[in-house]
Amino acid sequence: MNDERSSTEKTGRHSPTIRDVARIAGVSIGTASKALNANGRLRQETRDKVTRVAREIGYRPNDMAQSLHRTRSMTVGVLSTDSFGRFTLPIFQALEEQFADRGIAIFMCNATDDPERERQHLDQLLGKRIDGLVVTARRADKRPPVGPLPPGLPVIYVYSQPDDGSALSLVSDEVGGARLAVTHLREIGCTRIAHITGPEHFEAVLERRRGFREALALEKLTEHPGFYLSGKWSEQWGREAVAKLFDGVPADQQPDGLFCGNDQIARGAAEALRDRGIDVPGQVAIVGFDNWNVMTDAARPPLTSIDMNLAALGQEAGRLLVDMIGGDSIGGIRRLPCTLVVRQSTQR
Amino acid sequence: MNDERSSTEKTGRHSPTIRDVARIAGVSIGTASKALNANGRLRQETRDKVTRVAREIGYRPNDMAQSLHRTRSMTVGVLSTDSFGRFTLPIFQALEEQFADRGIAIFMCNATDDPERERQHLDQLLGKRIDGLVVTARRADKRPPVGPLPPGLPVIYVYSQPDDGSALSLVSDEVGGARLAVTHLREIGCTRIAHITGPEHFEAVLERRRGFREALALEKLTEHPGFYLSGKWSEQWGREAVAKLFDGVPADQQPDGLFCGNDQIARGAAEALRDRGIDVPGQVAIVGFDNWNVMTDAARPPLTSIDMNLAALGQEAGRLLVDMIGGDSIGGIRRLPCTLVVRQSTQR
Repeated sequence: MNDERSSTEKTGRHSPTIRDVARIAGVSIGTASKALNANGRLRQETRDKVTRVAREIGYRPNDMAQSLHRTRSMTVGVLSTDSFGRFTLPIFQALEEQFADRGIAIFMCNATDDPERERQHLDQLLGKRIDGLVVTARRADKRPPVGPLPPGLPVIYVYSQPDDGSALSLVSDEVGGARLAVTHLREIGCTRIAHITGPEHFEAVLERRRGFREALALEKLTEHPGFYLSGKWSEQWGREAVAKLFDGVPADQQPDGLFCGNDQIARGAAEALRDRGIDVPGQVAIVGFDNWNVMTDAARPPLTSIDMNLAALGQEAGRLLVDMIGGDSIGGIRRLPCTLVVRQSTQR
Repeated sequence: MNDERSSTEKTGRHSPTIRDVARIAGVSIGTASKALNANGRLRQETRDKVTRVAREIGYRPNDMAQSLHRTRSMTVGVLSTDSFGRFTLPIFQALEEQFADRGIAIFMCNATDDPERERQHLDQLLGKRIDGLVVTARRADKRPPVGPLPPGLPVIYVYSQPDDGSALSLVSDEVGGARLAVTHLREIGCTRIAHITGPEHFEAVLERRRGFREALALEKLTEHPGFYLSGKWSEQWGREAVAKLFDGVPADQQPDGLFCGNDQIARGAAEALRDRGIDVPGQVAIVGFDNWNVMTDAARPPLTSIDMNLAALGQEAGRLLVDMIGGDSIGGIRRLPCTLVVRQSTQR
């Protein structure tokens, strides 16, 4: 770090050039150029170092943009196949930052699940000669691949999967997230864990249920009869499910831990237990899913939850699309890890 | 209607032309062209009729797009001066629909309240030769005008105001919205109405308070001491404010109606009253603000609220920007009305 800083200081007198960036980063001018132009194959570490140095010495990103401008439109399309919402927002915001840093502008289109409108948008985007395409959705369900697309156009699905598995798809590891939740409940002493979740036509419900069951098996716990309840994504359903699990049920047959499919369900469950004078987390601990702070922070008590790290998904998607525009060929499904965020509802 | 329908049928055999549109709409070809190309000055009624006819007989919007394509980039920029969120989303979605219908693509930029990033985005947008610019924000506070912009570039502020009052700005009539809330509470019999709201550095707080006070005056009601409480935009604050207004206060000095600055505060207040065994709406009626269904529908009881009609704001902004791109010169502040949405919390 010290070496770098003193080299940085030496460049203070003239407007920094790519030669300065290369020298200070300890790479060739060709490598520096590749890194800054988001071109070719480079280790992420090298790319990061070069861009950090460029930023530190004030090498102007516009210069990069201009050098690319001749061959590229410097635009990408983001096509949402469902309305924009709570889930696509953090992804979009992270994408936008990634692209803005590289001087790439974003065309934003909303196809609202209407294939004809999607086709229209796609025609328009291709007419603008976009350099790449991001397809995102409100929920992680599978969908037919967009297209037809011109051969070689980089495309990436985020929080969305093409059903033919052809293209690069970035999703959250929801099975892993559910396992985190159950393992955490087990660690704080729960042995009778129930799962209250949303409607089964959501892929997310099936994946989270799979994680729930895998973790029960790993922890050598039993799924008791009636301890899996599928309903709606609402607080109301959380309250109803608690009535089913607790009202008129002998204390030793009630759950002592609830893993809820989203934070709204978890909040409804917490309120319903509160209404019944059942202590959370003392008697029943609760974990939600989504880490949506509007819900987790206002609930009584505040809710432990699983975070899908959608911003990280967006960042990674931005980086990968830039690599693909630079010539890399990347495919397959990548699942990014979820994180457990602990709050009072599991703090015993 | 009957006349139109039979004329429509006559065009069934050939691919419809602008001549067909003009004939069926009962306007000249020039007027039809103006209406479809979003050009020149026309009565909104005429424009609507022509576009409706064009849609009905299947006149292809791409044809319009192509005729414009020669002189315009067919792109507009949307610059958010704050992160994208719950308030900008419905606006953006409505804008996007308006523009998509006219074959105009949207560049979406997020300046996250950072003037340097805003400058960068603006340079980029101008480099792409956008036909118009929409500036939007997470909250309706005043801001310095964006710029410098090339002379004649149509620009419109939505849910945001330039502090020099120079450009066209579309905002919700928040004063009017607050008046609706208080008048409604008065109509169902409340006479001791308190206002629990957010932090005063928000323009929205000042405007809603102004509406609250104007309506009290109109209804010949008194603002009792301690009945205006400014705090945070949170459920927690709603609960705290209820403690201040009710705990240890003689029944005849408690409020019988609460107008809350947003739905989160209203929900917190409703829950706190519920905890105290005070009946809502029987003893105390509650009106929130924002009509955010995540809050209004899950609250016990569901909340009456004021809707700012942000989608209508976005639609109107889209139409006006298209008019401006077509040559209209429009400025000043336009306030669109709010709507009262009644739910159980005021249904006596």
